[in-house]
Amino acid sequence: MNLKLVTTTIGKILILEALFMFLPLTVAIIYGEGALNIISFVITIAILLILGFFASRNNIEDESFGVKDGFGIVALSWISLSIFGSLPFIISRQIPSIVDAIFETASGFTTTGASILVDVEALSQSMLFWRSFTHFIGGMGILVFALAVLPKTTKGSVHVMKAEVPGPVFGKLVSKIDITARILYKIYVSMTVVLIAILILAGMKPFDAMIHAFGAAGTGGFSNKAQSVGYFNSALIDYILGIAMLLYGINFNLYYLILIGNIKDVFKSEELRVYLGICLFTVFIICLDVRELYSNFFIMLRDVFFTVSSIITTTGYSTVDFNRWPLFSHYVLLMLMFIGSCAGSTAGGLKVSRVLLLFKSGVNELKQALNPRRVMSICQDGRTVPQNIVKSAHLYLILYIGIFVAILFTISIKVNDFATAFSAVAATLNNIGPGLEAVGPTESYAYFSPFSKVVLTFAMIIGRLEIFPVLVLFAPSTWRKR
Amino acid sequence: MNLKLVTTTIGKILILEALFMFLPLTVAIIYGEGALNIISFVITIAILLILGFFASRNNIEDESFGVKDGFGIVALSWISLSIFGSLPFIISRQIPSIVDAIFETASGFTTTGASILVDVEALSQSMLFWRSFTHFIGGMGILVFALAVLPKTTKGSVHVMKAEVPGPVFGKLVSKIDITARILYKIYVSMTVVLIAILILAGMKPFDAMIHAFGAAGTGGFSNKAQSVGYFNSALIDYILGIAMLLYGINFNLYYLILIGNIKDVFKSEELRVYLGICLFTVFIICLDVRELYSNFFIMLRDVFFTVSSIITTTGYSTVDFNRWPLFSHYVLLMLMFIGSCAGSTAGGLKVSRVLLLFKSGVNELKQALNPRRVMSICQDGRTVPQNIVKSAHLYLILYIGIFVAILFTISIKVNDFATAFSAVAATLNNIGPGLEAVGPTESYAYFSPFSKVVLTFAMIIGRLEIFPVLVLFAPSTWRKR
Repeated sequence: MNLKLVTTTIGKILILEALFMFLPLTVAIIYGEGALNIISFVITIAILLILGFFASRNNIEDESFGVKDGFGIVALSWISLSIFGSLPFIISRQIPSIVDAIFETASGFTTTGASILVDVEALSQSMLFWRSFTHFIGGMGILVFALAVLPKTTKGSVHVMKAEVPGPVFGKLVSKIDITARILYKIYVSMTVVLIAILILAGMKPFDAMIHAFGAAGTGGFSNKAQSVGYFNSALIDYILGIAMLLYGINFNLYYLILIGNIKDVFKSEELRVYLGICLFTVFIICLDVRELYSNFFIMLRDVFFTVSSIITTTGYSTVDFNRWPLFSHYVLLMLMFIGSCAGSTAGGLKVSRVLLLFKSGVNELKQALNPRRVMSICQDGRTVPQNIVKSAHLYLILYIGIFVAILFTISIKVNDFATAFSAVAATLNNIGPGLEAVGPTESYAYFSPFSKVVLTFAMIIGRLEIFPVLVLFAPSTWRKR
Repeated sequence: MNLKLVTTTIGKILILEALFMFLPLTVAIIYGEGALNIISFVITIAILLILGFFASRNNIEDESFGVKDGFGIVALSWISLSIFGSLPFIISRQIPSIVDAIFETASGFTTTGASILVDVEALSQSMLFWRSFTHFIGGMGILVFALAVLPKTTKGSVHVMKAEVPGPVFGKLVSKIDITARILYKIYVSMTVVLIAILILAGMKPFDAMIHAFGAAGTGGFSNKAQSVGYFNSALIDYILGIAMLLYGINFNLYYLILIGNIKDVFKSEELRVYLGICLFTVFIICLDVRELYSNFFIMLRDVFFTVSSIITTTGYSTVDFNRWPLFSHYVLLMLMFIGSCAGSTAGGLKVSRVLLLFKSGVNELKQALNPRRVMSICQDGRTVPQNIVKSAHLYLILYIGIFVAILFTISIKVNDFATAFSAVAATLNNIGPGLEAVGPTESYAYFSPFSKVVLTFAMIIGRLEIFPVLVLFAPSTWRKR
């Protein structure tokens, strides 16, 4: 790795984080919160600016990124963001434990939405705002943001974007990477502004609307209410957020296609069709499974639709305690947790296009086993998928399983319930938030030991960055000087 | 598929099954069991001989096997074996339910060892003998046996052997497939005869020794005691069976290498070293995890060693209720269930060599992501593994996961505990037998609904034949006439 380049870039990222923190600082001042909160943000901003300034002052001779640089920068940036982003919680003593505060912040940035807070409503407005705003930043990615706003982009910064934007393939919208980043962020911000407006019109207070719009946009799931979205008890809000989450789970490249009037290609997207198909189908089968728990069809439909949308997009908002649904529904939800939404969206999981690729590979292999002489290739969106992409998808699955198992073992040392451990790992690695049993939608991660929390924090970051960037940090060759 | 050829071959297999059934018939006569038992076997033998005779009377013009023929024959043979093999239980009313009797027989042939019997000791000696003897037949495979004993082998019968012998690659020992089959069976029978003798010397009654030797040989796990091997309460027997199971979990090709004096190649086998390494390592970490439950080190070591050996070889014998061990140990055992033993052994699971291949692929992919220009190949036993074998292993994993999930969903409709459903599918698909919670080592599969039992029966057969042969039956093209 080009360590100077890495330090400089992370310095810039820390400065960006400082700038973002002026927002919750403003909230603290508007709501007239005590001096402690204001001081917490001011101190953190000062630390970030000083560190950022010194780190980014480097003189760099070689400004091009290699793959390792790109991946390493992204991983280190996310770790730094989580650590420094937790300072306001720690200094203000609103989340006194360092491990807890970092867990909560990483959960925010990675748009997981898992919380260690037993009583979320005890947090002050400014802290709640910061906590949810991390979802918004993490959703589209802070390095994508940096590429969009920083004056010059260096050669090879496409590796940075590849590392941060999820999915098996990363497609640039336009030839220039910084313009691509700008387009993505414009769409993202516009959608969120519209969502906030709609939520206010639907009866939410502006503050609540912002919090929940951030949570939906990043497909994160932090709420400022103990009962999550269930608090509002409004069919309208449930449907608005349910649909919004689904929209944020779609590949943002498709929105660009809509913007430039290329609607035809949008409908050609197999991933989109399969994604919507899975949603419809799972709503249907879960309804069948839970029908005896409901006397009213429309209430059932609303609850099931919201839950499916929340889980497949890996958001994690809840309006109902699905822990009480039968086991079949649990398994269906668990499957959705693993599938996740579309590549290039703000959601987590394996991604629909990757699962689709794996499924097609499986079918192909079967056909080939029966007709060894037939050579078959895999098509997606009407085009042949290159062999190396297919291979990468296979190997991603293998790495994913390996890491899942490793984390599961580490967690199980301190946990005693099978479903709790299994779903906690699934919920953090896939960036969902709530799992089943002791980490179900009405519970919190306070249950875990500090050791387990650290491991799960790692799981969230590994999941958000899709494994490779984090593993790069563990390769000895990464740390050799160029 | 060449339907005539398929019918003829299955006819021959049914005749072989009839011949095997003379053994339990003899047991029934020796122990002076009631007329009902004797009649049950006689009727079944008669049915099998008549059906087998008519089915195998076909005039076949084209005697060569295609891949589909080979795979289809194996799948249909195993289904027929299980159905007809259950007749003695049904006719004698010792297992009156048809679903239960087929489950138990399929569990025997597939060497799963999962039982629906609540009180195994209520069964008569002849039925116990037949139940355990199915393990012995299924372990090395009945079609391999057919190839070994039937006078002429037809072209392409290597496909039959490929379908029945587990593992990612099938290596012929000698150029002729029938001689390969004969060598394998000679080794298998000799080892089992020696094991019976040792068990008798260690204090078992001859009948018990046979039952448990069959269970260990096929890595099946049926016992004639309610407490399984724990009944004998003997450290000597625990260690004999523990080591025996491990030996049957080794690729039989290695025994052939020993026989021809090629010891050097045996030690070269990476699969063997990794297999033994996994055993040692898991014994060690489980000991660490359960140390507080034991006051005596040697009793702990004996229990843990036996359990690890029983689970990794997918046998399923138990001397201790590992349901009471902590969750970490549960997960370790669950992992062993998935890994299984060596290819070309009588054990189930994914097979060590396949897991090793997948692991190496994952590491390779990681290295390649960091150094895109480097081209790497995967080595095993000092040789480069061909790309198509690596690809097959990937796709096997994908199919395996797909089928696991599909079965899990089907089961979860009728089950309510997460760990029970999950481990029941793991225990049947990997041919182990006992799972966790309600299907733990002291429990039985009687708990499940008839529907679930049918699904799990399928899981056992799919697992034993490693997916492809069974899936062939579902391909429409298979049923088109040639």
